[in-house]
Amino acid sequence: MKNLLAKKDGELLVSRIYQSESTQFEVKSCLIGGEQVMVIAGPCAVESEELLKETAFKVRAAGAAMLRGGAFKPRTSPYSFQGLGEKGLKLLARVGEDMNMPVISEIMDSEDIGLLADYADILQVGARNMQNFALLRKLGQLNKPVVLKRGMSASIEEWLLAAEYILAGGNSQVILCERGVRSSEPWTRNTLDLSAVALVKELSHLPVMVDPSHATGVRSLVSPMARAAIAAGADALMVEVHPQPEKALSDGDQSLTPRGFSTMMRELEPVARALGRRLR
Amino acid sequence: MKNLLAKKDGELLVSRIYQSESTQFEVKSCLIGGEQVMVIAGPCAVESEELLKETAFKVRAAGAAMLRGGAFKPRTSPYSFQGLGEKGLKLLARVGEDMNMPVISEIMDSEDIGLLADYADILQVGARNMQNFALLRKLGQLNKPVVLKRGMSASIEEWLLAAEYILAGGNSQVILCERGVRSSEPWTRNTLDLSAVALVKELSHLPVMVDPSHATGVRSLVSPMARAAIAAGADALMVEVHPQPEKALSDGDQSLTPRGFSTMMRELEPVARALGRRLR
Amino acid sequence: MKNLLAKKDGELLVSRIYQSESTQFEVKSCLIGGEQVMVIAGPCAVESEELLKETAFKVRAAGAAMLRGGAFKPRTSPYSFQGLGEKGLKLLARVGEDMNMPVISEIMDSEDIGLLADYADILQVGARNMQNFALLRKLGQLNKPVVLKRGMSASIEEWLLAAEYILAGGNSQVILCERGVRSSEPWTRNTLDLSAVALVKELSHLPVMVDPSHATGVRSLVSPMARAAIAAGADALMVEVHPQPEKALSDGDQSLTPRGFSTMMRELEPVARALGRRLR
Amino acid sequence: MKNLLAKKDGELLVSRIYQSESTQFEVKSCLIGGEQVMVIAGPCAVESEELLKETAFKVRAAGAAMLRGGAFKPRTSPYSFQGLGEKGLKLLARVGEDMNMPVISEIMDSEDIGLLADYADILQVGARNMQNFALLRKLGQLNKPVVLKRGMSASIEEWLLAAEYILAGGNSQVILCERGVRSSEPWTRNTLDLSAVALVKELSHLPVMVDPSHATGVRSLVSPMARAAIAAGADALMVEVHPQPEKALSDGDQSLTPRGFSTMMRELEPVARALGRRLR
Repeated sequence: MKNLLAKKDGELLVSRIYQSESTQFEVKSCLIGGEQVMVIAGPCAVESEELLKETAFKVRAAGAAMLRGGAFKPRTSPYSFQGLGEKGLKLLARVGEDMNMPVISEIMDSEDIGLLADYADILQVGARNMQNFALLRKLGQLNKPVVLKRGMSASIEEWLLAAEYILAGGNSQVILCERGVRSSEPWTRNTLDLSAVALVKELSHLPVMVDPSHATGVRSLVSPMARAAIAAGADALMVEVHPQPEKALSDGDQSLTPRGFSTMMRELEPVARALGRRLR
Repeated sequence: MKNLLAKKDGELLVSRIYQSESTQFEVKSCLIGGEQVMVIAGPCAVESEELLKETAFKVRAAGAAMLRGGAFKPRTSPYSFQGLGEKGLKLLARVGEDMNMPVISEIMDSEDIGLLADYADILQVGARNMQNFALLRKLGQLNKPVVLKRGMSASIEEWLLAAEYILAGGNSQVILCERGVRSSEPWTRNTLDLSAVALVKELSHLPVMVDPSHATGVRSLVSPMARAAIAAGADALMVEVHPQPEKALSDGDQSLTPRGFSTMMRELEPVARALGRRLR
Repeated sequence: MKNLLAKKDGELLVSRIYQSESTQFEVKSCLIGGEQVMVIAGPCAVESEELLKETAFKVRAAGAAMLRGGAFKPRTSPYSFQGLGEKGLKLLARVGEDMNMPVISEIMDSEDIGLLADYADILQVGARNMQNFALLRKLGQLNKPVVLKRGMSASIEEWLLAAEYILAGGNSQVILCERGVRSSEPWTRNTLDLSAVALVKELSHLPVMVDPSHATGVRSLVSPMARAAIAAGADALMVEVHPQPEKALSDGDQSLTPRGFSTMMRELEPVARALGRRLR
Repeated sequence: MKNLLAKKDGELLVSRIYQSESTQFEVKSCLIGGEQVMVIAGPCAVESEELLKETAFKVRAAGAAMLRGGAFKPRTSPYSFQGLGEKGLKLLARVGEDMNMPVISEIMDSEDIGLLADYADILQVGARNMQNFALLRKLGQLNKPVVLKRGMSASIEEWLLAAEYILAGGNSQVILCERGVRSSEPWTRNTLDLSAVALVKELSHLPVMVDPSHATGVRSLVSPMARAAIAAGADALMVEVHPQPEKALSDGDQSLTPRGFSTMMRELEPVARALGRRLR
C-alpha cells in the first residue's frame, strides 16, 4: 500500500499491511469473504409484500443467499417515489425471516440507524453518502455489517479512507461495493471499474462486492459483468431482480426477471468454479 | 428548461419558468443576488481567534462583505484535522459580530443544524453532501440561507434537483455554488466549470456563487478564475485567505495571503464594472 | 514549470522558463499574442460562396479580424458531410482576400499540408489529432502559424508536449486552443476549462485561444464564455457564425447569427478594456 | 442497435443488424473471432533482436499465438524513445517468421502503411489515432486486418463509427480493442471498461480484443483483468511481456515477465473453458 494510505503512526486499519489475512464474518449462517461468492438479489425498492415474496422465493430457488430491498430510496428528484420507509423495512424483515434469508437495506439518515438495525442484517451506505462522514462515524459504533458503496467519482484512496472512518470507530464488518464510476459514456449508466476490485483486494483485507445492475443500468450487461466480477476476484454480487421490470417503481431497465436471474446463476457457476470458488 | 427538469404537475420551484425574476435576499445588510457581486473570504478552517481576527480585519479592509470559516471539516481521512467544532463556531460568530460581517460555515451532520443556525448566518452544504437528501430535507425547514455546493461529479440537473429538495421544504434562500468538477487533469484539484454558472443563471432564478480556491487548488489561479467567474455571471465569490498559508491546517496551497486577496480585489473591480456590477 | 515538463538536458521550448517573454507573431497585419484580443469568426464548414461572403462581411463589420471555415471536416460518421475539400479552401481564400481577412482552416491529413498552406494563413489541428505525432512533426517544418486544439481529454502536460513536437521541428508559431474537455455533463457538449487558459499562460510563452462554440455546443453560452475567456487571459477567440444556423450542414446548434455575434462583440469590448486589452 | 448508430439508408456495416453472424477471419493459421481466445504477447517496443527472440520464444511456449512489438511508438514527449522504425519492423517480421507467429505492430503515419503492410500481419491503430479519419480511410483500402484501439475518452458510438470508416472503404477485417478510458483515478493508468466489451459484442459482429497492460498500467492487475476480459466475452487479449521490465525502454511498470505471463496463461485456461472457449 502506497504511502498516501499510511497514517502517521502506522498503517491504516483497512490495509493488508496492518492485517494480512482477509476479513471474514458471518451474517446469520452466511459467510462473507470466504470460499463462497455470496449472491444478494431482490428488487431495487420494496414495493409490496406480494412482489417481494415472489421475488424472494424465486431468487432463493435460483441460488441467492440474501435478499435486498430499499425502504428509503435516494432519489435525484424530491418528487420521485421515495420508498415505503419503516413499512418497507418491516416487510423486508418478515419476508427475509420466512425465507431464511438475511436482508440488506440502505441507510440514508443517521437518525434512522436504530430503525435499520432493528430490521436489517446488513446496512448499506449508498454512493451519494460515501463521504457522509457523520453517518460513517455513527456506523462505526454499530455492531452490524455495513456495505460501503463507492462514490460516483471517488478515488480508491477516498473509498478506503471512508471505510477507515467505520473501522476507526470499532466496526470492522465492512464490505466494499464497486457500483461503477461516472464517465462520459452515454450508453451505460456508469462505467464498472473491475480493476478497482482486483486492486482493493490487493490493498485491503476487506471483502469486496460488485453491483452490476447499478453499474451498467442495462439488463443485458448484468450477467456478463457478474461473470467478469467473479473473475476479477469479487467476494459478493448484488443484483436487482423484479418479477415485472417494466412496472418497477425504480430502475426497471436494469432489473433482471427471476428467469433471467436464474439463467445468470447457471452462467456464473462454472466461472466461480474456475476461480476455485462456488456460488453456494 | 428541458423536459427532464419538469415535474409532472408543473415546473420545478428552482426553474426560471416557475419564477422569472432572479431571487434576491438579505443576509444582515448584505443583498445576495443583486447588483453587487458579494465576496466572502476567510480561512478554510477556523484555527484560532487571533488568526481569524487578523484575517477578517484584512479581508474586510480589502472589500470582503462576509466571513467564512469551517468549524466542522469534511476530511478524506479520519486522522486529519477535523475542525474545532462548536468552539470554532463561537469564535467565528464573535469575530463576525466584532467586524460587522455575516458569517458562513459548513453543516456536515443534520444533528448539528440547530448549533449551526445559532452561530452562522449562512449554512453551507459541501460537495460531498450535495445528495445527502436527509440533510437537504431538514434544511428545507430552516429559515436561513443555504449555500449548496455542486457535487464532485454532479450533473447540472442533479444539482438543481438537490436545490429543489430545499425549496420544496419551504426554504427558498438557496445559493448554488460551483466549486469545480472532478476530471483527469492532475495539475488542478478540480476543473472549474464556468459554463455551469452561465447555464444555471439561465435555467434557474437562484443566485450563483463560485469558489475558485477549491476549484483550482492553485493559488496563482484564484484571481484569474475569480475574474472569469464574474464575467460568466456569478453573483458571489468565496475565497480562502490565510495570513500564513504555508502553516494552514488545511488547504494551504490554494489560500491567498491577505495581500494577495487585496490585489485580487483590485483586479476584480474593473471586471465587475464592465458587467454593470460592483464589488461593494 | 514542474519537473514533469522538463527534458533531460534543459527546459522545454514551450516553457516560460526557456523563454520568459510571451510569443507574438503577425499574420498578415494581425498581431497574435499582443495587446489585442484577436477574434476569429466564420462558419463551421465552408458551404457556399454566397453564405461565406455574407458571413465574412457581417463578422468583419462587427469586429472580427480573421475568417474561419472548414474545408476538410472531421466527422464522427463516415456518412456525414465531410466538407468541400479543395473547392472549399479556394472559396475561403478568395473571400478572405476580398475582405482583407486572414483565413484559418483545419488540416486533417499530413498529405494535405501543401494544399492547406497554399490557401490558408493559419492551419488548425483539431482535438482528435492533437496527438497525431506524424502530423505534428510535419507541421514543425512548415513556416506558417498552427493552432493546436487541446484533445478531448488531454492533460495540460500532454497538450504542451504536443506543441513541443511542432516547436522542436523549428516552427515556433503555435497558438494553443482550449475547446473544452469531455465530461459527464450532458447539457453542454464539453466542459470549457478556463483554468487551463490561465495555467498555460503561466507555464508557457505561447499565445492561447478559446473556442467557446465547440466547448459549449449551446448558442446562449457562447457570449458569457467568450467574456470569461478574456477575463481568464485568452489572447484570441474563435467563434462559429452562420447566417442561418438552423440550416447549417454541421454544428448549427452552437452557431451565432451575425446579429448575435455583433451583440457578443459589444459585450466583450468592456471586459477586454477592464483587462487592459482591446478587441481591435 | 439504437437509432444513433443507424445511417439514413440502412444499418451501419459494423452493426449486428446488418450482419448477425460474428465476423471471423484467419491471420496465417490463427482464427480470430472463433472459439479460441487469441493471446498476443510481446514487448511494448522492439528494442533488440536478442530480447525480442527471447520474449517470443518464451511467450510462444506459454501459449501465445501472435507476437506484438512497436516499431513506431506514439510518445507524449518528442524527446522520449520513438522506436526503431523500419529496423524494428524487420526484426519483428524475422522473429515472427522464425517462431511461426503472426506479428502485429502500430501504424502512426498514413505514409507508412505500405511499409507496415510489408512486414506486419496485423496493423494496429493506437488510441490517439482512433479518429485520425485520413488514416482510417486509407486502412479501408488495405487487405490486412486492423486492430482499432478505443480512444482515451471515446464513446462506444464514436468507436464503432471509427470502425465504420474502415469497413466503408472495403476492409472488413477489423478487431476492436478496449484499452481503458481516461478517468480521475490516479492508481491505475486508465479505467478498463469491460462493459464496453459485452456491449460491443452485442451491438456489432466484429471481434473484440482487450489490452489489460495499457488499461491498468499495473503489473499485478494484468492477470485478473485478463481473466475478467475473457469472462466478459473478449475474443483476444494483448499483453506486454518483457524479460527485464525494469530495463524496458517504455511501459516497464505494466509489463509481465515471461514467468508472470506463463502463470497468467495457466490462470486464464479454466476461465476460458468455463465460457466454452479455449486458449489454443
